[in-house]
Amino acid sequence: MNSEAIFGQVLKNIRKEQKVSQEELAFRSNLDRTYISMLERGIHQPTLNSLLAIAAALDMKAAELVGLVEDEMESYQN
Amino acid sequence: MNSEAIFGQVLKNIRKEQKVSQEELAFRSNLDRTYISMLERGIHQPTLNSLLAIAAALDMKAAELVGLVEDEMESYQN
Repeated sequence: MNSEAIFGQVLKNIRKEQKVSQEELAFRSNLDRTYISMLERGIHQPTLNSLLAIAAALDMKAAELVGLVEDEMESYQN
Repeated sequence: MNSEAIFGQVLKNIRKEQKVSQEELAFRSNLDRTYISMLERGIHQPTLNSLLAIAAALDMKAAELVGLVEDEMESYQN
């Protein structure tokens, strides 16, 4: 599983945990709903600015979000 | 100062602290030297994969690298 796919999965999980729709996340982060959808499906990879915007919209630090992705990547490698 | 410029500054500082040249960082991260140079000058913003590759090449976590950028962004806002 590549990092885009893992990021997408992590993002979707956090978003669902917080009961936020893709539309709401798009609105809060000022990103396009289609872009959010592509990120979640691992079709696109986020840029630093998207990471910052998405993390802020989910009330977390981008470092925390990236850390979750790294943890998940490690668990796939092991 | 935007996040690209701050990222560039943070990256350059860490690279210099570790006494790694742009060429060496490019080689280790499997990225183009020109791309590293553009990142450091804040002309480009990194993608998740570049963050992961650069952090690994500098023997740190991408979460740590992003955290340093966020700390620096906060200090500029205050």
